[in-house]
Amino acid sequence: MTPVEELVAAPVAAPPFDIVRAAYVELRVTDLERSAAFYADALGMLVTERDGDAIYLRGWEERQHHSLVLRQGPAPAAGAVGFRVRGEDDLDALAAEFSSRGCVVRWSPDRIGLGRVLQAWDPFGFPLEFVHALEPRESQLQRFDLHRGAPILRLDHFNLHSPDVEATFGFWRELGFRCTEYIATDGDDDRLTGAWLTRKPTVHDLALTAGRGPRLHHIGVWVGEPAGVLRACDQLAASGRVGAIERGPGRHGVSNAFFVYLRDPDGHRIELYSCDYYTGDPDHPPLRWSVSDPRCRSFWGTRAPDSWYDESSPVLDAGGAPAETSDAGVDERRARTEVLA
Amino acid sequence: MTPVEELVAAPVAAPPFDIVRAAYVELRVTDLERSAAFYADALGMLVTERDGDAIYLRGWEERQHHSLVLRQGPAPAAGAVGFRVRGEDDLDALAAEFSSRGCVVRWSPDRIGLGRVLQAWDPFGFPLEFVHALEPRESQLQRFDLHRGAPILRLDHFNLHSPDVEATFGFWRELGFRCTEYIATDGDDDRLTGAWLTRKPTVHDLALTAGRGPRLHHIGVWVGEPAGVLRACDQLAASGRVGAIERGPGRHGVSNAFFVYLRDPDGHRIELYSCDYYTGDPDHPPLRWSVSDPRCRSFWGTRAPDSWYDESSPVLDAGGAPAETSDAGVDERRARTEVLA
Amino acid sequence: MTPVEELVAAPVAAPPFDIVRAAYVELRVTDLERSAAFYADALGMLVTERDGDAIYLRGWEERQHHSLVLRQGPAPAAGAVGFRVRGEDDLDALAAEFSSRGCVVRWSPDRIGLGRVLQAWDPFGFPLEFVHALEPRESQLQRFDLHRGAPILRLDHFNLHSPDVEATFGFWRELGFRCTEYIATDGDDDRLTGAWLTRKPTVHDLALTAGRGPRLHHIGVWVGEPAGVLRACDQLAASGRVGAIERGPGRHGVSNAFFVYLRDPDGHRIELYSCDYYTGDPDHPPLRWSVSDPRCRSFWGTRAPDSWYDESSPVLDAGGAPAETSDAGVDERRARTEVLA
Amino acid sequence: MTPVEELVAAPVAAPPFDIVRAAYVELRVTDLERSAAFYADALGMLVTERDGDAIYLRGWEERQHHSLVLRQGPAPAAGAVGFRVRGEDDLDALAAEFSSRGCVVRWSPDRIGLGRVLQAWDPFGFPLEFVHALEPRESQLQRFDLHRGAPILRLDHFNLHSPDVEATFGFWRELGFRCTEYIATDGDDDRLTGAWLTRKPTVHDLALTAGRGPRLHHIGVWVGEPAGVLRACDQLAASGRVGAIERGPGRHGVSNAFFVYLRDPDGHRIELYSCDYYTGDPDHPPLRWSVSDPRCRSFWGTRAPDSWYDESSPVLDAGGAPAETSDAGVDERRARTEVLA
Repeated sequence: MTPVEELVAAPVAAPPFDIVRAAYVELRVTDLERSAAFYADALGMLVTERDGDAIYLRGWEERQHHSLVLRQGPAPAAGAVGFRVRGEDDLDALAAEFSSRGCVVRWSPDRIGLGRVLQAWDPFGFPLEFVHALEPRESQLQRFDLHRGAPILRLDHFNLHSPDVEATFGFWRELGFRCTEYIATDGDDDRLTGAWLTRKPTVHDLALTAGRGPRLHHIGVWVGEPAGVLRACDQLAASGRVGAIERGPGRHGVSNAFFVYLRDPDGHRIELYSCDYYTGDPDHPPLRWSVSDPRCRSFWGTRAPDSWYDESSPVLDAGGAPAETSDAGVDERRARTEVLA
Repeated sequence: MTPVEELVAAPVAAPPFDIVRAAYVELRVTDLERSAAFYADALGMLVTERDGDAIYLRGWEERQHHSLVLRQGPAPAAGAVGFRVRGEDDLDALAAEFSSRGCVVRWSPDRIGLGRVLQAWDPFGFPLEFVHALEPRESQLQRFDLHRGAPILRLDHFNLHSPDVEATFGFWRELGFRCTEYIATDGDDDRLTGAWLTRKPTVHDLALTAGRGPRLHHIGVWVGEPAGVLRACDQLAASGRVGAIERGPGRHGVSNAFFVYLRDPDGHRIELYSCDYYTGDPDHPPLRWSVSDPRCRSFWGTRAPDSWYDESSPVLDAGGAPAETSDAGVDERRARTEVLA
Repeated sequence: MTPVEELVAAPVAAPPFDIVRAAYVELRVTDLERSAAFYADALGMLVTERDGDAIYLRGWEERQHHSLVLRQGPAPAAGAVGFRVRGEDDLDALAAEFSSRGCVVRWSPDRIGLGRVLQAWDPFGFPLEFVHALEPRESQLQRFDLHRGAPILRLDHFNLHSPDVEATFGFWRELGFRCTEYIATDGDDDRLTGAWLTRKPTVHDLALTAGRGPRLHHIGVWVGEPAGVLRACDQLAASGRVGAIERGPGRHGVSNAFFVYLRDPDGHRIELYSCDYYTGDPDHPPLRWSVSDPRCRSFWGTRAPDSWYDESSPVLDAGGAPAETSDAGVDERRARTEVLA
Repeated sequence: MTPVEELVAAPVAAPPFDIVRAAYVELRVTDLERSAAFYADALGMLVTERDGDAIYLRGWEERQHHSLVLRQGPAPAAGAVGFRVRGEDDLDALAAEFSSRGCVVRWSPDRIGLGRVLQAWDPFGFPLEFVHALEPRESQLQRFDLHRGAPILRLDHFNLHSPDVEATFGFWRELGFRCTEYIATDGDDDRLTGAWLTRKPTVHDLALTAGRGPRLHHIGVWVGEPAGVLRACDQLAASGRVGAIERGPGRHGVSNAFFVYLRDPDGHRIELYSCDYYTGDPDHPPLRWSVSDPRCRSFWGTRAPDSWYDESSPVLDAGGAPAETSDAGVDERRARTEVLA
């Protein structure tokens, strides 16, 4: 086993808290009405609630108040990525964990649609949130007569741009995330350049990819079948939003996803994602991809545009300002495999 | 060759007129708003125009004012099935043809969305119309953002219930229709029990099936892919119209269609139809099915409900009253093959 | 809350063992080659291994030696339904659990493709097996060039016919299964007639439906999208197996599945199953269906054939003979809702 | 109307011959076994016959001996594109037409699977063939159990690279081809840069696009639904042929096609094509696209690779050598709209 293979094969931690899954994200947008038109009208997500400066949306299957918050802000940014934990006690255990690491930790008690929220900035600067109590809403999965767009059924995962994938990977493993797939360089230069980590038994709740960070590369939302991904493209183009389609539709080698990447009016990236697989077995083996395999990120060999590698949403630091980013240690050759391979 | 095979193999007539395709149908409905809700809201057809007692609809691909007219009437009935001809002269030639056969012939000059219309009742009592000039409308094929339902793209064909399929078949062959598929009984009792006839190079513009007639069994509308047929079922059920789904979805052996049959609020039957094939070659051979082949009408063997065999829309006679019907000569055993085979 | 609602809403037990998911099933077949032709050739499952009297198959995604065993036997029967547990210790804890209930318990140490297997007959006579160690095989999920049939990706669930759904439900809840959906009678006659129970976060690993039992109603296998279900029907019919299609394709209200039910050459029932949803949240609320809602089992209203309600695979008792069955307490009216509603 | 619009709107000729449709193509390949592996094994076309240096293939729906001939040759080239005519007399009338234009005309009497073949080189150097008699074969449309790949159902169209689209357009109009869609430059520089022409009532039998010519840009084959296009990509990649996928899958604005372009082992380009529409009405209006509309060739805005614009199959001149080509008059800016727009 190479060092990377040993890193990936190491047992996952069994921490004293239980993170269930990726649950919600807040995006800061510069024109709330324009963003609402994109997510609710063009992509057809359900609007649960609006208040003065925010809109709360969810997918058609979801039983919770919201999985996406659009909040008016001075500049585009990712507010935080939110995870659900099994019980209220898990929040306290997580607070202790982050505090013991010297991270900023805060409690946010009065969010719309959420119970007590733990805010934390991880050692790499990513703004995280954890919650147990979600205000319930009825699933609209079988209101086929109301569905619009793909339709988007539920939030699936987050993808983070990190300049040090290996260190970030180690951190999330200590939070109890299992690795399902990863990309590594070949030969002597044995490095981890991407990793797919999960708590729920799908391919991921969280992906880490090498790049300037901390930044949010994209949020992934679940679509029931490839035909829905195609339908969304047709509808976006027909409504005059052809520029929103950044990459795809296509098939990822990693995760088996049939996907398309969209950019919202502020440049936040959304992946419409379908076709992954069951990973819930206790000994589910991580799948290794070589960075030089052209099918790894594009199973059909299609070249991704530079923007997909270079651009990401800034995240907010504990003071509410855009977090400083770094690309030290990011080897461009490794991150952008399709271009040069 | 058996007598039926000889009948089917005989050369098609080359009459002095050129019928292009099935073009429109008028249905008499007893509650115009209720029917509009079904066709426009639930099935998602485009409304081109409304006047006092009629609504004019079309499919998303169609470049003509309408292919379906819903007209308020005292009882459910099929007003007429309409065909387009290549030029205005063809109308005069058709008028001569029908007159020479002793059929009632009338001109209807001032229809909404149509040019000069020839009305004729064929020797079996079916009310037919022919037109050349269609008021143009822009195709909405690529307004994917506006599409609703399957979506329904265009009118494809009519299916008529006739007590004497062989005689009716002979008549339409003299109008220049080619046979693409047919169902015949086996052995000594050599009878034609169903025939698919066409002018445009698809499986049919007109089907004839054995049953009490003259009645309109259904109109068939084109859907781009099987997924659209499933989507329409999901949407009808979700909107509280589960009773509208009469048969299917399923695959026909005949025509290869992936279909579902719906009943509108007045009982008129609509087939959502996809997956047929090219038949335009001059020597395209008619495909024979045995009435005892269980895959003939239901490729997957699914039994059709009795209503599908027994019920049809009445048609109007030249006086505007429901035409008298007969089932003399209809052999129930042959018509309802799946039930008893 | 009605008594049934209280039963369903009661907290799930936290037993000292952890069942991960439905993992495999063994079917006794009377002509091994004929069954192999059905499952491997017609349905396109992967054959991992054959020995003298058995064939071991798996779905294209599965990383384990097999999920289906076909074993030559004197008469059709379900050998056992098998579940995977998280660790070897869980097997001992389960053995203790079954022993304490007075159930027959046995160890089977030398199965092909499996580690130590615990056999147990539950209080209702169902033959169960539990295993931790599964011999690994490589996933063939992305060998799209080799896929055949739907394709079948993995085993999803079992459905058991039980004359006393409420008692059986209570038993499985004590094993730690959560209820995701259930069917209950209305009004004063408040009875549970069907229940969908799960360990993995999908709609079910196990369904219980009212009927003569103990019998195995069907095994459900996962198909990636509705188009695969249609493709399987087309292929079965084209290969001369039209009689294998028993019910569907269609949509279930319960579970949202797009399904088709097939009968293998011995009459064992297989459901090709797609389109369910995520259920992994700790407070996921069970969804109640009224037995009188026509969309409950057939979202599109299609009537299921009597065979689907009446026929099931016998199971084997601890002596290897067909288990005695009972229908005491099965109210035919409630079980067969579509027929009479 | 601009000059281009006048050109397109001019009445189509009614010549004394009747071309029915695009019917077959012959490709010269440098390694027959390698090409057979691509078309028969990887794409799953039906092999009707092989002789020493040629393989004859067809789509699953086709009732003719072949629509594709692969013939061993010293270098990759397109042998000829073949059209079917309505009767034998039409061949003689076409021979007279080509002779009167001073074109080389030859008769080829003894082709495998074809009757009397008329060979002609058009004024622009394209090698054409015309035939009436096609040796019949049974359609395999409903042998779903045997289908492989997309599957490919039938040949649909040819696309020719021509340095002078306007002149070539005029020529084909005189052969009776109708224009369904076209691309034109805007403003004062009013030029035709692409045209879709047809005899059968689909979008095209023949497309002309601006580029170095005479060369064959691609042959288009019909696939029943978008899912088939995706399946073909997955299978090509899984079988190690990821390099064969050149462009797409995607949606064309022109023709509404859901497509993917493949390159065979000799570089010949194949389009898997689905989703076009009915064009058979006598007054079907040509649809104009502006060369500066980004959705024209890529409805979703995806950039096509340079190879798609630059590379094409050479055609053979009357002496059997590669025809000389020219790009005089090809305005690169106009031809490659997506790149620079």
